[in-house]
Amino acid sequence: MTEQIKRVGIIGLGAMGMGIARSLLRGGFEVHACDVRPEVVQQLVADGARAAATPAELAGQVEALLIVVVNAAQTDQVLFGEHGAAAHLAPGAIVIASATVAPEYAETLGTKLLAMGLRFIDAPISGGAAKAASGEMSVMAAGAPDTFAVCATLFDAICAKLYRLGEQPGQGSKVKMINQLLAGVHIAAAAEAMALGLRAGCDPDALYEVISNSAGSSWMFQNRVPHILAGDYRPLSAVNIFVKDLGIVLDYAKKSVFPLPLSATAHQMFMQASAAGFGGEDDSAVVKVFPGITLPAAKV
Amino acid sequence: MTEQIKRVGIIGLGAMGMGIARSLLRGGFEVHACDVRPEVVQQLVADGARAAATPAELAGQVEALLIVVVNAAQTDQVLFGEHGAAAHLAPGAIVIASATVAPEYAETLGTKLLAMGLRFIDAPISGGAAKAASGEMSVMAAGAPDTFAVCATLFDAICAKLYRLGEQPGQGSKVKMINQLLAGVHIAAAAEAMALGLRAGCDPDALYEVISNSAGSSWMFQNRVPHILAGDYRPLSAVNIFVKDLGIVLDYAKKSVFPLPLSATAHQMFMQASAAGFGGEDDSAVVKVFPGITLPAAKV
Repeated sequence: MTEQIKRVGIIGLGAMGMGIARSLLRGGFEVHACDVRPEVVQQLVADGARAAATPAELAGQVEALLIVVVNAAQTDQVLFGEHGAAAHLAPGAIVIASATVAPEYAETLGTKLLAMGLRFIDAPISGGAAKAASGEMSVMAAGAPDTFAVCATLFDAICAKLYRLGEQPGQGSKVKMINQLLAGVHIAAAAEAMALGLRAGCDPDALYEVISNSAGSSWMFQNRVPHILAGDYRPLSAVNIFVKDLGIVLDYAKKSVFPLPLSATAHQMFMQASAAGFGGEDDSAVVKVFPGITLPAAKV
Repeated sequence: MTEQIKRVGIIGLGAMGMGIARSLLRGGFEVHACDVRPEVVQQLVADGARAAATPAELAGQVEALLIVVVNAAQTDQVLFGEHGAAAHLAPGAIVIASATVAPEYAETLGTKLLAMGLRFIDAPISGGAAKAASGEMSVMAAGAPDTFAVCATLFDAICAKLYRLGEQPGQGSKVKMINQLLAGVHIAAAAEAMALGLRAGCDPDALYEVISNSAGSSWMFQNRVPHILAGDYRPLSAVNIFVKDLGIVLDYAKKSVFPLPLSATAHQMFMQASAAGFGGEDDSAVVKVFPGITLPAAKV
């Protein structure tokens, strides 16, 4: 086996990043961590990670850098902003970027890093916080074969499924974008279905059970409707994430003048929820755009 | 155990009805069958069923009558049309109606049958032809407890899950209607996602595999996208079924002035496919509404 990466940096310790970092520690990697919230870094230091004050400081210590932030702007900031990592990485170091971004952004980033003598894997992730914590998430990845070759044990530690979707950066982000199209439409559809059920006087718990076992089910229906039934809108993934992700989908399609009627409709529903003040709530709060129904109250 | 129904009539031997009839024969019931296509009835006679020339003729032979047709108009025809069954059923005989119909229709039908001295179970079905054949479909049912009590072995023979959703006819059809809302939106969303993937140059087989294992998946995505990948639009369930079913959903919501943005959009997509000449094709042919892409060719 090709000699493997051992010193890994991770920037962004949110729900996904923290789980990935812990999976790397369990996998025996030397983990360097950085986050805008120092107290979160300290939690990880207690588990054996090494803290870095800035991306630049972290960059000098690692052979590969995972960036687990929420969007392209943050990815850019981490790499090229003040105290950014890119200029301080060793020649040939590998950048693995996991935010959901426009495919064109991933392409451009790959070109830019290559010109700096660095290597790049376009690697959006899916599966949620629980799977990240157990090292079982999915990665939709694109990059050069020799780059994947030295990251085999790294990906083994953090994911159950590594989909290699091509050699060109952007090919991972395209598939992730289309996954987000469906994820967003399915969350909004789950909300619409439950709203109509409440309006029609159905028992919402029975409706959830029947549909979960029928042809109308989706991964998102099964995962998000329990939040509605429990009246629990604490954000695991927020409404505003789908304002962004469906926005990426629609911007991409607009460039080639391609119609996406359901994505456009779902995007409007998330924007309506955000504009009404629910942008920071769990994405299942898109159900609050439906008037004339009484949602299940929070279980105390 | 309460004495059970033994002589069962079934009217409508399509993909679902034929499977249900065979499940009843396997379960040891005396099965009387009727369909507008006599040759289909003869297939079932070879397996032990008894043929009836008309619903009226069948009605005199049975304690319970399953109606497995596609809509309310056919249900009405079978019961109240020329040679209809209703007037010939024995007092207290049970009508079990399985078409997807408007909840108000099921309510009215229950009242009408009750006034004739008959009993009624509102019993839409879900699961597809394969599950009907193996006796493992789902039934979303509403009716009186004593009616269910004498049909216990009947439902055991034909379904894996009997959901009892209330005593009032219409309560089963409401839940089925909401399942169809999701089923229709999810088929149209699967088509939209695959269309964008093709436009973006993704490998469609890889896209299917990744999304089937990710948070963007749905029952319909997993079930219908293989038809698109194989270029096989022979109808298992046709585009026009969702023109009808999403029409029922939207009509229902319109009566109480309730907005359903995604259902309305998906309904337009199925109507566009139908108007373009694909109404009789498999519902996955809704993908043909997307211009500017080359769909996978039929595998010969």
